[in-house]
Amino acid sequence: MNTTEKTLRIGICGYGNLGRGVEQALAKTQDMELLGIFTRRDPSTVTSALGCGVHGMDALDRWQGKLDVLMLCGGSRSDLPEQTPVLAEKFNVIDSFDTHAHVAEHFARVDDAAARTGHAALISVGWDPGLFSLMRVLADAVLPAGRSYTFWGRGVSQGHSDAIRRIPGVANAVQYTVPITDAVERVRRGEQPTFTSRQKHWRECHVVLEPGADRERVRQAIVSMPDYFADYDTTVHFISAHELARHHAAMPHGGFVIRSGETSPQSSQVLEFRLKLDSNPEFTASVLVAYARALHRMHEAGRTGALTLLDVPPALISPHAADELRRQYL
Amino acid sequence: MNTTEKTLRIGICGYGNLGRGVEQALAKTQDMELLGIFTRRDPSTVTSALGCGVHGMDALDRWQGKLDVLMLCGGSRSDLPEQTPVLAEKFNVIDSFDTHAHVAEHFARVDDAAARTGHAALISVGWDPGLFSLMRVLADAVLPAGRSYTFWGRGVSQGHSDAIRRIPGVANAVQYTVPITDAVERVRRGEQPTFTSRQKHWRECHVVLEPGADRERVRQAIVSMPDYFADYDTTVHFISAHELARHHAAMPHGGFVIRSGETSPQSSQVLEFRLKLDSNPEFTASVLVAYARALHRMHEAGRTGALTLLDVPPALISPHAADELRRQYL
Repeated sequence: MNTTEKTLRIGICGYGNLGRGVEQALAKTQDMELLGIFTRRDPSTVTSALGCGVHGMDALDRWQGKLDVLMLCGGSRSDLPEQTPVLAEKFNVIDSFDTHAHVAEHFARVDDAAARTGHAALISVGWDPGLFSLMRVLADAVLPAGRSYTFWGRGVSQGHSDAIRRIPGVANAVQYTVPITDAVERVRRGEQPTFTSRQKHWRECHVVLEPGADRERVRQAIVSMPDYFADYDTTVHFISAHELARHHAAMPHGGFVIRSGETSPQSSQVLEFRLKLDSNPEFTASVLVAYARALHRMHEAGRTGALTLLDVPPALISPHAADELRRQYL
Repeated sequence: MNTTEKTLRIGICGYGNLGRGVEQALAKTQDMELLGIFTRRDPSTVTSALGCGVHGMDALDRWQGKLDVLMLCGGSRSDLPEQTPVLAEKFNVIDSFDTHAHVAEHFARVDDAAARTGHAALISVGWDPGLFSLMRVLADAVLPAGRSYTFWGRGVSQGHSDAIRRIPGVANAVQYTVPITDAVERVRRGEQPTFTSRQKHWRECHVVLEPGADRERVRQAIVSMPDYFADYDTTVHFISAHELARHHAAMPHGGFVIRSGETSPQSSQVLEFRLKLDSNPEFTASVLVAYARALHRMHEAGRTGALTLLDVPPALISPHAADELRRQYL
């Protein structure tokens, strides 16, 4: 750590899995201090795992000028589209907005709010979008004649789990997305195949039925569901609520970005980035915390408006000073 | 490609394996044009593979102001320590200086020359130092509680091959550095072992003897050589000059950067970056070319002095415009 730099004053907005992960990740840094957690719930019902003060969202106005970065830990469906532009008018903010199709629109709205008020806002930070995006850009630039592949899993997909839970007769469900090993191996060997969805991933569902529900009808409803399952090979396991709680409560995830390309007719080059995560929200939180450091430094250097991690020089996310990085890491 | 940007005017200084790789890599871009190759040899004896003009080094002075980036493709031992500071006074330059122990000193000398004359110079670009350095910084920042490992190979080490060639009785030699699979697998599983040199890599030597040389004496001289071989398990194969030329002329390389860390007592997270390269110089050249794009853009934005790839926002190495990257790659 560059000891001449001051300690960053951090706030967390939203205290679910991601917010709790950010709190844990901050505790592992030497240069950041958590000053407050802000929640939409009644703050008296929320207890911080590490003993930080918890406040209502309406308290945020009083914290203007007292936080260097506010970490937005809400969901991409309804929280962040609303919160990030509003809070970027008052704070430097960072979010993990992950709805790929709406990133451009979210960026524009946040950019307007942040630029107008002299703040900096870093959006869509995490691992996909996030570190995987960075690898796709890097790999494409370095090997322009080639082809990139992203595989996800084995990991829990909240969207697919939710889709199963909406089927009548389903009490609870967890869905794992699983990359097909043979497809990963072919890409890794330098082949550049064209895959259908079915050839890249399969879907593994663990379902708890409501009493009296019809197994076969539920199974059919899952495997034939358009967009979510119809284009994949899907296995459905019916299990008890006890088994689900015992074996499927963790949130593992991960995946691979692989690019294979040629630099000359005889030279194939393969670049691979891989994550194997025991906890998806805790890892996403760790990425957010590292990039909060960069966001603060870029704002101190005069940068305002919206940014993504593609705009961030890697040295700025490190707690180590530039000369130490050159000596120890280069 | 952002079609509003102009075509970059590029020169190559040094036309060995790396220089030829840069020429090939430039041919795969839409936004860069090779204007000249500069060599210390008699230019009339050097023919460009793709038909570019070849000039002596003394011609460089006449090219000032006519090149956006000069790619320095000499060696780290004697060429770059001398050339990079001198040429950074006249051009924006990029090099692949890879002597880890002298990076700080090289950086300081280049920084002085470039800053004084209003140029930008990007040093130590390639894959190690280079993309591997970037991964080490990224992984350390994102998983502060953890441990990083770098494995190299299977690939040709020029330094170790040269060391064997200096042994009396050796006509020619190629040395492969090979990572020990079991060590890689342990790190990948999330263990954080402490390894000796011998436990991480082994060394595979293919040696052509001079007529009449003593096999056993040469073998002993290799395996007992301090620094290079004594701390490793080393196998020595004696082969004919014909076999060496036929099976060991390529320059494959690669390796792994793996960091394993915890975000909470129950959550282990593993991040891995891997390269599998048929041609080390061609891949290094491709990295140089992508980063030349960033160097030019940063200089246009007013940046001067020495930089490393840790200072470069990833978006700047891409031929695609920022909004396209957000839409297609994020």
